[in-house]
Amino acid sequence: MEFKALNIADFLQGTVEGDEQVSVNNVSKIEDGKPGTLAFLANPKYERYIYETEASIVLVRQDFKPEEPVKATLIRVEDPYEAFASLLELYEQTKKLKQGIEQPSFIDPSAKVGEEVYFGAFAYLGQNSTLGDNVKVYPQTFIGSGVTIGKNTIIYAGAKIYDGTVIGANCVIHAGAVIGSDGFGFAPKPDGSYRKIPQVGNVILEDDVEIGANTTIDCSTMGSTIIRKGAKLDNLIQIAHNCEVGENTVMAALVGIAGSSKVGKNCMFGGQVGIAGHLNIGDEVKIGAMSGVTNNIKSGRTVLGAPAMDHEQALKTYVVYRRLPQLRSQLIDLQKEVAELKSKLNEQ
Amino acid sequence: MEFKALNIADFLQGTVEGDEQVSVNNVSKIEDGKPGTLAFLANPKYERYIYETEASIVLVRQDFKPEEPVKATLIRVEDPYEAFASLLELYEQTKKLKQGIEQPSFIDPSAKVGEEVYFGAFAYLGQNSTLGDNVKVYPQTFIGSGVTIGKNTIIYAGAKIYDGTVIGANCVIHAGAVIGSDGFGFAPKPDGSYRKIPQVGNVILEDDVEIGANTTIDCSTMGSTIIRKGAKLDNLIQIAHNCEVGENTVMAALVGIAGSSKVGKNCMFGGQVGIAGHLNIGDEVKIGAMSGVTNNIKSGRTVLGAPAMDHEQALKTYVVYRRLPQLRSQLIDLQKEVAELKSKLNEQ
Amino acid sequence: MEFKALNIADFLQGTVEGDEQVSVNNVSKIEDGKPGTLAFLANPKYERYIYETEASIVLVRQDFKPEEPVKATLIRVEDPYEAFASLLELYEQTKKLKQGIEQPSFIDPSAKVGEEVYFGAFAYLGQNSTLGDNVKVYPQTFIGSGVTIGKNTIIYAGAKIYDGTVIGANCVIHAGAVIGSDGFGFAPKPDGSYRKIPQVGNVILEDDVEIGANTTIDCSTMGSTIIRKGAKLDNLIQIAHNCEVGENTVMAALVGIAGSSKVGKNCMFGGQVGIAGHLNIGDEVKIGAMSGVTNNIKSGRTVLGAPAMDHEQALKTYVVYRRLPQLRSQLIDLQKEVAELKSKLNEQ
Repeated sequence: MEFKALNIADFLQGTVEGDEQVSVNNVSKIEDGKPGTLAFLANPKYERYIYETEASIVLVRQDFKPEEPVKATLIRVEDPYEAFASLLELYEQTKKLKQGIEQPSFIDPSAKVGEEVYFGAFAYLGQNSTLGDNVKVYPQTFIGSGVTIGKNTIIYAGAKIYDGTVIGANCVIHAGAVIGSDGFGFAPKPDGSYRKIPQVGNVILEDDVEIGANTTIDCSTMGSTIIRKGAKLDNLIQIAHNCEVGENTVMAALVGIAGSSKVGKNCMFGGQVGIAGHLNIGDEVKIGAMSGVTNNIKSGRTVLGAPAMDHEQALKTYVVYRRLPQLRSQLIDLQKEVAELKSKLNEQ
Repeated sequence: MEFKALNIADFLQGTVEGDEQVSVNNVSKIEDGKPGTLAFLANPKYERYIYETEASIVLVRQDFKPEEPVKATLIRVEDPYEAFASLLELYEQTKKLKQGIEQPSFIDPSAKVGEEVYFGAFAYLGQNSTLGDNVKVYPQTFIGSGVTIGKNTIIYAGAKIYDGTVIGANCVIHAGAVIGSDGFGFAPKPDGSYRKIPQVGNVILEDDVEIGANTTIDCSTMGSTIIRKGAKLDNLIQIAHNCEVGENTVMAALVGIAGSSKVGKNCMFGGQVGIAGHLNIGDEVKIGAMSGVTNNIKSGRTVLGAPAMDHEQALKTYVVYRRLPQLRSQLIDLQKEVAELKSKLNEQ
Repeated sequence: MEFKALNIADFLQGTVEGDEQVSVNNVSKIEDGKPGTLAFLANPKYERYIYETEASIVLVRQDFKPEEPVKATLIRVEDPYEAFASLLELYEQTKKLKQGIEQPSFIDPSAKVGEEVYFGAFAYLGQNSTLGDNVKVYPQTFIGSGVTIGKNTIIYAGAKIYDGTVIGANCVIHAGAVIGSDGFGFAPKPDGSYRKIPQVGNVILEDDVEIGANTTIDCSTMGSTIIRKGAKLDNLIQIAHNCEVGENTVMAALVGIAGSSKVGKNCMFGGQVGIAGHLNIGDEVKIGAMSGVTNNIKSGRTVLGAPAMDHEQALKTYVVYRRLPQLRSQLIDLQKEVAELKSKLNEQ
């Protein structure tokens, strides 16, 4: 799609300076802008790029005064970054315009499908499942029986939603994510083999949740594994059975949370963090990448390390850790000195 | 499905106390039981909940004597937890009742399909592959050429089974798992690029194996990558080419095992463990979460840490690690003291 | 397929010694060779196996002189390992012979499909996408809109390629891999919730790239996430938005690279490595398994540990780490000795 400077300025309630008719079909960073793209200048540190950029249109602040000639068409707005983000969102929404039931696809006669739904080819919708209005289900997605999906939710290609899952409105679930697979529960038998403990619970994703590509969330043994409103999980994360992840909590890729642990709201986890089972992590907790958590954490704390400790302490400890060979040498030197002192003292 | 207290008691060979006609359609924990659900009371610590639970039916021991009035209908059985597990298994088996070939699906004319098989829509069965009796293949599953799958095995939506894989009876493979992808083998060329070493082996899963969602198991370069009878792998695990995982060994999520390593039987690995290549891990070895194993481990040992060491030693070492800054301060203090002693001694 | 000794020798320009008509349909290691298979003897350490192997054919060096009778048919060649690898490659190429459009599949009318393409059942090809000649797309693969795929590339079952991805020639993408999912970008709002930052960039895989099973590569916020020519990524790896991975760089499974980091060429990463965001990793850098990298790394360095440090230093530090309890005991002993010396000196 092509957009003219004039129309963009209209949408942003900005003013054009330069060629009103120039058009763009993509965005770029100002430092590597190409013809036919739109960039923005928000941070004054980047000002020098505006004099060399090849971008056709640049969003600038209302009071921006160029110190050299600028080739690009300028659109003056209140807040260039905000305006740029709005354009990106507009662009994203065009994606959501996909609509209709592609064939072949499989919709069980007992399933209910809302208005303006997109249901891609080779996607599967099981018995008594429900898609809200404006839900977009990409090709090859599996949705089992008794699943409910709230309005405006997008499920990308090949995600797998097991029976009984409940998904809220405005969620985004990326390709290959698995929601509701069996919790990992086995009871040892006397002969060393295991008896599978049936996992008859489900998963609940509240509204505004985002689940990354190939992330897996196991169903509860009984009751529900719950991801609260607004939580955002990156790719390749494992959430085990009976867990709860609080509102607006954000986790980077490859995090693993063992069974029955509860994470509070507004937490931030770095990548590859591990949380042991049956723990309680408070609200607004920050956990550094690759940390291993084996104890409860109180609200507001920042931890780091494996096993995790207070962030400040972890950094101090690590400084000494790096110098352990020197520390050991100093100790050996000191042992020698003390031995010498001792013999000297004994000689007296 | 609804079940009456009377019928449940019949199935469990228990006796009803209360309304025989009350019915349930789900299970719950006694502490958050809801009307229409069945709970159990096994641990006396939970007894107080039986007086307030909203669950319609509670399984109790034959000799249970309530100390207050109980609203729920009771079913008295020998062992309430066992009885509950039996009910869950019964419930699970109803899932296995799925049967028939959904359309559209793809079954190569040369493939063989047993009795009472479920083969979901958009699933693919390649040349000369065989499904045993009562196998359940969920939608969008890929089964390549020359694959054998034993009776009663369940393969959930979108799992991918490469050519030549052999899967035993009573296995469970969760959504998105990949079995038999190429081993990661490349030979460096003089110019710094790599030549792919063809991986012409396969993967064998013996009977009673469970493979978690999005777990990946690579085929062998030659011969077979083998997962032995009764082994249970959680989600997002990587098993590289030429590995062997022993009978009844259990691994938590996000474990990675590098090429040609052999793990014995009845081992237990915590989450995010890493095992280097070409190692031998004995039987009944326990490895703590996030440990990194770089050496062989003898049978029966418990290890922890990265690199992994004996569990007891790891805990002791960690206690000192946490206090490294203090240790360093003590050393500095001691250096000063020794210096003072020295000068004092020299003064004499 | 069956191959006779005579034909294999022809292909390899070798000479047969023994039964020219014996045929094989598989390969094996010489130490566990079975009838009907072909093995090779390159390393003299394995010579003893040639006298007991059940393999029907063994490739040996031109000048090999058996010291005992050999049952197998020998084929004498210049370099047995090279010859064996050539046979494996030949065998692999037979896989690539798959051709034609299986039904049902979905190809948008605006898409372009080259010559000799295989397009499996339930695979999806979106608007304005292009498949080069000899591309092999396995069943249930998703290819979005505006995707370009170069000649000879193989995409295994159920991989998901988001809109706008550019894939070069001779690439291999394994089952379940996700290319082009949204980067993990969210701007905090005053109420603690997050606003999604649209990710409008794409992913570029250059020629000869291999992507492992269930690996995920996020698209760029703007511009491209790039995997350079010849790079090889193992299974379950996460590459975040705006990253770049250099030519011929090789990464083992479960590695995670955070946003906007740039990795140079000819690097080697062990499994479960983590790289923080916005870092610069030089060329020919080696990173040991499970290392956590929080700083830039200069070309040619080898690092280890979490946080990562120079490899030599890491090993030395770890030696002391393992003995921390003893170090602490020595310090305590020394403290006592010094205290004694002090009191002795004061007595004088």
